Amino acid sequence: MFSAETYQNRRAVLQSNVAGGILLFLGNIENPVNFEHNPYYFRQDSTFLYYFGIQEPKIAAIIDIDENKTIIFGDELSIDDIVWMGRQETLKEKSLKAGVKETLPYAELAQYVLKAQTSGRKVHYLPPYQPSNKILLTDLLGIKIAELQPSVEMIKAVVKQRSVKEAQEIVQIEEAVNVSNEMHLLAMRMARPGVKEYEIANAIQYLAANKECQMSYPPIVTINGGILHNHYRLNTLKEGDLFLNDSGAETAMGYAGDLTRTFPVSKTFSTKQKEMYEIVLNSFNNAHNLLKPGVKFKDIYLKASEYLVEGLVDLGLMKGNPEEAVKNNAHTLFFQCGLGHMMGLDVHDMEDLGEQYIGYTEEEPKDTKTFGLKSLRLGKALESGYVVTVEPGIYMIPELIDIWQAENKNAEFINYDKVNEYRNFGGVRVEDDFLITNDGYRLLGNGLITTVDEIENYRAEHLY
Amino acid sequence: MFSAETYQNRRAVLQSNVAGGILLFLGNIENPVNFEHNPYYFRQDSTFLYYFGIQEPKIAAIIDIDENKTIIFGDELSIDDIVWMGRQETLKEKSLKAGVKETLPYAELAQYVLKAQTSGRKVHYLPPYQPSNKILLTDLLGIKIAELQPSVEMIKAVVKQRSVKEAQEIVQIEEAVNVSNEMHLLAMRMARPGVKEYEIANAIQYLAANKECQMSYPPIVTINGGILHNHYRLNTLKEGDLFLNDSGAETAMGYAGDLTRTFPVSKTFSTKQKEMYEIVLNSFNNAHNLLKPGVKFKDIYLKASEYLVEGLVDLGLMKGNPEEAVKNNAHTLFFQCGLGHMMGLDVHDMEDLGEQYIGYTEEEPKDTKTFGLKSLRLGKALESGYVVTVEPGIYMIPELIDIWQAENKNAEFINYDKVNEYRNFGGVRVEDDFLITNDGYRLLGNGLITTVDEIENYRAEHLY
Repeated sequence: MFSAETYQNRRAVLQSNVAGGILLFLGNIENPVNFEHNPYYFRQDSTFLYYFGIQEPKIAAIIDIDENKTIIFGDELSIDDIVWMGRQETLKEKSLKAGVKETLPYAELAQYVLKAQTSGRKVHYLPPYQPSNKILLTDLLGIKIAELQPSVEMIKAVVKQRSVKEAQEIVQIEEAVNVSNEMHLLAMRMARPGVKEYEIANAIQYLAANKECQMSYPPIVTINGGILHNHYRLNTLKEGDLFLNDSGAETAMGYAGDLTRTFPVSKTFSTKQKEMYEIVLNSFNNAHNLLKPGVKFKDIYLKASEYLVEGLVDLGLMKGNPEEAVKNNAHTLFFQCGLGHMMGLDVHDMEDLGEQYIGYTEEEPKDTKTFGLKSLRLGKALESGYVVTVEPGIYMIPELIDIWQAENKNAEFINYDKVNEYRNFGGVRVEDDFLITNDGYRLLGNGLITTVDEIENYRAEHLY
Repeated sequence: MFSAETYQNRRAVLQSNVAGGILLFLGNIENPVNFEHNPYYFRQDSTFLYYFGIQEPKIAAIIDIDENKTIIFGDELSIDDIVWMGRQETLKEKSLKAGVKETLPYAELAQYVLKAQTSGRKVHYLPPYQPSNKILLTDLLGIKIAELQPSVEMIKAVVKQRSVKEAQEIVQIEEAVNVSNEMHLLAMRMARPGVKEYEIANAIQYLAANKECQMSYPPIVTINGGILHNHYRLNTLKEGDLFLNDSGAETAMGYAGDLTRTFPVSKTFSTKQKEMYEIVLNSFNNAHNLLKPGVKFKDIYLKASEYLVEGLVDLGLMKGNPEEAVKNNAHTLFFQCGLGHMMGLDVHDMEDLGEQYIGYTEEEPKDTKTFGLKSLRLGKALESGYVVTVEPGIYMIPELIDIWQAENKNAEFINYDKVNEYRNFGGVRVEDDFLITNDGYRLLGNGLITTVDEIENYRAEHLY
């Protein structure tokens, strides 16, 4: 946990940004795997962590703005629990570490909410993503799940605050990134013909676990990098494959890292692989150089796309003017997804609170129709203190190529004959994590090798 | 998956054991960690696995007994999904492998259930343990969660069938046990002063993962074995500690293993540790020798308890007649929990369906009051084909000793002075998995070293 003052200050700021009523925070439970008492590992809700820091299932909290008090609701261990689970720090003790003096039994939460409701006070809550908290909210508020109305005022206040990272949060994120760096180097040392994808996934997870880290998301560890959300891991690596590793660690305090590297299973990149990789790397370098306060991330996405198109024109897969091509969305045959997202206590930071609040503004809402842009999680102007990923890529998706070609879509920008030579090429992505500073950006963590030479040399030294 | 015939036969048996109506089976979803699209690893519901075998989130099935047909509900991938997730086996193809010809879109499930309801037919369903399925059931049935009434007829039919394992299921369970055996040997090789508990937990998980196994439950890997449900893993092992490892693998098909071994962190057991270990081992050996069809597991629990008391009398911690001591529940100061449980697709097999159906009968229901017996998950007479764990133990719990001593509880059987010499001793448990055969039992798996000599010799050879 951070200091009690940290949580007190954060709550004070939040409180000052909401007009009145009570702010309700629901912690997570231990989610069952195949029966109630066989749970997955526990992960506290990120907003709860941010304002209270307590990693314990089945607790809740209320900041009563009108009465200017904060209460944590939860049950202390009974002697029966102590017999079974041993003596532990009490909830009271944990709450004091979060700067909260008042605790009440969990059962009293309902009463408190009811009392606020019946006295006509506003009960603010965030959008629930855990089914258990959907149920809890319907019980507390006496309405159906479909009728739940999360507080936009509270969402906006939380997003505003969590978007700008404190120095001590940056330390945590860099810890996560540095463990992630090690995971990626290990994958580079392990990937060779005959190894299974899941062996590498398991090894990087093992490395992280020994540093008391979880995975911040299910790793994508694949020889089919063209498949964007690929969690199949039973393939065996073979000569000539391109290996894509998108994985990151989460620290014990809950902060995420998120990195991607792509490299050949063979000793060196083939010419085709190298050419394609250089295009992505050039886009990546140019894109992150554009990061600074005031710049819209959507504009960096468009620029990154132009750099990709430039390279693809040089390679003969595309033709025409890159800017025009991007305006016509022709790049999305190869770059179907977004350029990056906010990162912090969640790998897609605050995604549970709604992309329209995290990544966009009311004046410039998200384009939810256009292929490509509709997958861009972050579009708005950057601010100092934001942490973002930058992750351009090129993905050859045979199904998509066939659909576009059948429609002769964007034929003025795409050489379908040439594209079809690459239809089984796979995918390339390069991704790092950046802090927006007052005058630009800073790469988070100690840095991870990225260039063709760096990767080939590292693997030559450690693998072959 | 097993053969299509397997699932067809299982469903036919089930169908024949329920009078009429429709049987509703809900698969599991991908449970969110910290936002909806960041899920824990997927685990299908065990009963769904048993009757359909399909490991895919967000599907459901209906066996319509009245109309004698079976339907799987779920959505095929759209071209958008294929772009993002790659081509995969269709639900139709998977369903055929489960012997089900008819599939319908997920959205039609509600309609089917409603139609059955409105035509006055009984809709049978099992007790939901996933919050998401509680919500789904309230939506499907139009009632509140508190009003849900799982079908006792369906529960009993499922329990009857799943309790008696098929030969091919035994093969799976033995695979799980054998991986578990390896996990335990690895822990024996690793445990030495200076190592952290979590390093051993991580290593055994890594070993299992490389055999495509999950943990069948959160491992208990601890130097404080006296704490029964102990998932704290930050302690460093030191000379003189007793190390308890309760962990098991789950095969890719979902079958569990569940083993416990206790051994010293030092090269050899101390005299105290050896004496205590031999008591537990003697109880363990005598208990599993009693396993056979017709014998009540509760009686084996009582016998195992008597053996523990005998040993504790010899050691001076208890006194008097062991049978009398157990009748008076005096053993529960040291053996607070049950002797074992059913095991199969769940480590506590079918626990979600209700212990009263799994472990007990209407004629002899569970004793839910008496300390000790109230924690015995299995009491009823064994049958050929059951798979059970046997896991006696002795646990020194300072808090419990203090409570009993303050009340002078069972003073005619307990030497509190002597007990207090052991108050920080910790805990010992030995656990293996057994199949009930026609005339007795068979240890599942290839066997794992158990005696003091075996464990000391193994560690001398591999560790020191």
